[in-house]
Order: sequence, then structure tokens, then C-alpha cells
Amino acid sequence: MTRTIVASAKREIIIGFDQPFCVIGERINPTGRKKLAAEMVEGNFDTVCKDALEQVAAGATMLDVNAGVTAVDPNATEPALLVKTLEIVQGLVDVPLSIDSSVTAAIEAALNVAKGRPLVNSVTGEEEKLEAILPLIKKYDVPVVAISNDETGISEDPDVRFAVAKKIVERAADFGIPAHDIVVDPLVMPIGAMGTAGRQVFALLRRLREELKVNTTCGLSNISFGLPHRHGINAGFIPMVIGAGMTSAIMNPCRPQEMEAVRAANVLNGTDKDCMTWIRTYKDHQPSAAGAPLAAAVPPSGGDAGGRRRGGRAARAGARG
Amino acid sequence: MTRTIVASAKREIIIGFDQPFCVIGERINPTGRKKLAAEMVEGNFDTVCKDALEQVAAGATMLDVNAGVTAVDPNATEPALLVKTLEIVQGLVDVPLSIDSSVTAAIEAALNVAKGRPLVNSVTGEEEKLEAILPLIKKYDVPVVAISNDETGISEDPDVRFAVAKKIVERAADFGIPAHDIVVDPLVMPIGAMGTAGRQVFALLRRLREELKVNTTCGLSNISFGLPHRHGINAGFIPMVIGAGMTSAIMNPCRPQEMEAVRAANVLNGTDKDCMTWIRTYKDHQPSAAGAPLAAAVPPSGGDAGGRRRGGRAARAGARG
Repeated sequence: MTRTIVASAKREIIIGFDQPFCVIGERINPTGRKKLAAEMVEGNFDTVCKDALEQVAAGATMLDVNAGVTAVDPNATEPALLVKTLEIVQGLVDVPLSIDSSVTAAIEAALNVAKGRPLVNSVTGEEEKLEAILPLIKKYDVPVVAISNDETGISEDPDVRFAVAKKIVERAADFGIPAHDIVVDPLVMPIGAMGTAGRQVFALLRRLREELKVNTTCGLSNISFGLPHRHGINAGFIPMVIGAGMTSAIMNPCRPQEMEAVRAANVLNGTDKDCMTWIRTYKDHQPSAAGAPLAAAVPPSGGDAGGRRRGGRAARAGARG
Repeated sequence: MTRTIVASAKREIIIGFDQPFCVIGERINPTGRKKLAAEMVEGNFDTVCKDALEQVAAGATMLDVNAGVTAVDPNATEPALLVKTLEIVQGLVDVPLSIDSSVTAAIEAALNVAKGRPLVNSVTGEEEKLEAILPLIKKYDVPVVAISNDETGISEDPDVRFAVAKKIVERAADFGIPAHDIVVDPLVMPIGAMGTAGRQVFALLRRLREELKVNTTCGLSNISFGLPHRHGINAGFIPMVIGAGMTSAIMNPCRPQEMEAVRAANVLNGTDKDCMTWIRTYKDHQPSAAGAPLAAAVPPSGGDAGGRRRGGRAARAGARG
């Protein structure tokens, strides 16, 4: 059984097929958040702290930490900023962290101060990346996210993306890094632009699980890019990828609809033992608040139909024609 | 490609792996609805009409019609009542219907008056049932729901349930009924009582699709029986069964959260061409109405995180360390 172990100073988490889905909170990331980027450059980490606390409160299993403020020379500025951000976050919450940077020096600087066993996000199949990141993964004995693209970019052919993932796993093995420390991101395309994007990912996830036997992750909300009511698409995608074998995702845990889908899929996948997390979270849930967007448009129906079909069959058992 | 064709007088629907999920509305069923049963016995079909119209308006692909009012002798009373109910419903809406009865004489009487090509619900693996129902299926050239239990009851072993389904398909073939006219119900157990119920069904659905090549259905809400916030479990279950290959379900289409899950899964499964149904349904959706039950408990987060990860990576492409 593939088990990827990540840890903070105090808490160890296992990513695996028999584990609850690992929700990696994506919020601490200045990319596309101008205000946050400006704050971080000024040394103001109020939003970082707020995002850390809110994501953990909302149920994040881990937090991704990115300090890519796109300065003129990230190689010069990002290492110190990532170290500072990481230290603040690991001083505030006790979930394991993911060190997210495209700057190798920043990753190494963060690995030097990180407590426990962080996840490194990420390496790709690009030769330069493999040579830069894999030695660090080996040296610090940490797991890494492997993104299925290489020098040729992101292939639309899932077989090519599988081949890139396989190459990364093999190259890691050359460095003495076991497959259970590689968490493959098969790359999720927007379904609005490519109608096969969902089926591609589901098929890829099965192959990654059955052939490479690796854990997997993705940037979850990419799937709904460009569509209305993105949370509804995301919330449908989560059970489908979990059913196909995905074991983690980088996502926003502060979205209740998505987190409800994660919790439901954990129940259905048998990783929420005795449904305890579900029952604890929703035991006081009021049906009237079920709150789907079309609720107001549909007249209330009489009584709860739940279980009727089964009851009906049982009730009819003695009345065969 | 397996295609089960059902039809009303005016409308033909294909159930198949490459088709939108077929939602069979479950509401017209007096089992467990005392008031409805009393009305139907009195010849009052107001609720039946209301349920028919509401379910079609909510997006049902087909409607199940059951008139099992559990009289002292269903063999004497159910045929006439089912015929009456069916005639009213098929006069009111133009979706294909499912004739739902455990009384063989009622099924035959309904088949005599049904327009188009109804689905018969159901046959089991019980010898007496097979001998009673399969000749009718052949005679009227209609598809049938095959429930995976037999004289020994419902097995908790999915291999036994698969074997029962296989037996029914083989027995049907002996009668000259093709496999594409058998829609197998693998039987869904409550996940709260059996933690493996989800994984069992997912594995069964794959085998039914790949080995028997049949369409499938289930009484969907059984999965959440006994748990709080059942709609959340149902809405997570729908994408998972669709991803595993299920092509229809008997469910309540008047539940917006469940129907949203069906529409999202159709998008992700590639059966909502160009996402047209999704876009038409949710184009005016207000994010503030996203309405998951915990919405009020989570502070608003700044900006929409959607697509950031992808953008982030693209943005960082020139900044490799």
C-alpha cells in the first residue's frame, strides 16, 4: 500500500488510498492576489495568518505555502520571503506544510527551516528541474509533487502525460527516492475548453494508481475554469477523482460545497470510519438549509423519499404476482 | 456500445455510457406515503399529476409509476389502479415511463395500455419471477430492470450479486432478450450500516459495464439511509457511480443538490455537449447563493481562488531557480 508521510513538528499525516482525502489548502499564495503580494513584500503577514487559521478551521489537512511575489529577480528575493512565510505559518498552525516555489534556492532555504516532513511542490519532467530538485528531495528525505509536463509543455495526450510521470518516478529512483515519495499531478485541463478533460484525468488516475502505484494530487479548481457556478462543477469533480483513485488536491478548503463533497466522498470511499466525521459535521444540519441554488424554484415535495424504494421492495416481497 | 431505448408516444431516450445520466423520477409511488395511497384508492390523482409535472420540470428523464397501495389482495386491485395511474401520467407528460410493480398481472395490464417503449421495473433472479416476467419482456419487446437478488435474498457478497445479474442476463438471452434490454440494479446498501457499501457498488458497476456490458440503475437514496444531511451523501454518491459507469438511477429529481450533482457529473463525464445544459441552468447563478450548509460559519475569503494555481504556474514559468 502506497503511503506518503508528511509531518509538522507535532503531527504526522499519511497520504494513501486507504486514507481520508488530503486537502492541501491553496490560499497562502500571492499569485493573482495583488493585495496579498504587496502586504508580503512590506513584511505584513496578517492575511497569511488569517488564511492559515481559516483554512485549518475549515478542515485543511495540510497547507501549501507560496511566496512567489513575482519580483524582478525571484532568485534573490524569494528565498528569504518563503522562509519568513513558512516560519510564521508553522509557528501558528500544526498541520504539515507544502513548500511551493519554482525557485530552487527558495525551496532549499525553506527545507532548511521547515519542521517535520514537508511536501515539496514541485518538480516537473524538465531535465533542468529534475537535476535541481531531486537531489534536494533525496538530501532532505521529503516527498515531492511531480507535475506531468516537460520541456515540450503540457501535452493534451494523456499517454504523454503518463509517460512524463513515469519518467519522473524512474529518475527519482535513480536518486534513491522511492515511488511512495512522489505525488503525481496528472494536470487538470478546464472542462469548458476540452470536453474530454474529465475522462482523461479519470483514466490517468487509474493508471497512476495501478501501474505506477503513486499518490496523486491536482490543482482542483482548474477543471471549472470559465464556467458559471464553478463550485458546483468542483463539487462534482471531487467525488469522481476520489473514486478514480486521487488521494490529495490543492484546493480552497474555505468553500463549504467543495469540503462537503470531500467529506461525502470519504464516507463513500470507506475512509471516514463509521462516518464519524460526517456525523460530527452534519448532525445538526437542517434539511431546510440544504441550500442548493435552485431550491427556491422547486415546490416543496411532501415527505422524505429517502429509503422508500428499498422499503417499497421489502414491503412488496410478500405480494408477488 | 450498449444502448437501451425507452420511449413515450412522442419522445425516445437512449440509456447508455455515452449519454447524459438517465434520471428516473421516483415520486409516483404510494409506498410509505399513506396520504397518496389513500388518495389513489379513492380515485384522486391530484398528487400523482402534481408529482408528474414537478418531476419533469425539475429535469427527470423518465418517470417511475408505481401503484402498490398494499391492498389485501394486490393481485386483484393493483392491475386496474396501475393502468389508471399510467394512463393519467402518459396523458400529462411526454417523458418515457417505468412500469413499477411486483404484481405480474399489473405489469402486463400496464404494458397493454402503455404508449411507446416503457421500462419494466422489475425482475429478480428468483425462478418464479424470471418465469413470470421474462416472457412479457419478450412479448412486448421492452427493456427491464434486473435486481441482483434471488431466492436466498440480497447477498452482502458483491460476487454473488454479480453472479445473480449474470444469471438474469443469460436467462433473458434464452428468451431471445438482448443484454442491452437488461438494466441491472446491483443493489445499494446503506453506507451507515456497511462501510464497504460504496466500494462494493463501484467495483460491481465496473464489472457490469466491462464484463456484462449492461446499463445499470439503483435506488439511489438507499446509500444515505440513517445518516444526517442525506442530500450531501447522495450528491457525493452520484458523481462516484457515474464515474464508475452507472447510467441511470431511480431518485427524486425535485432535490436541487442531487440534480446539480447529476448535471456536474454529465459535464465531467463528457455527456453534456459543450456544457450547454450546465451553462443554461446556472448561467445566472449567484456565487453568494452557493448555499452549502456551513456557508455562514466560514468567513468570506478575498477574491475567487479559481484557476489561480494554473495561472500561478504559468506566471512562474520564466522564473525557474
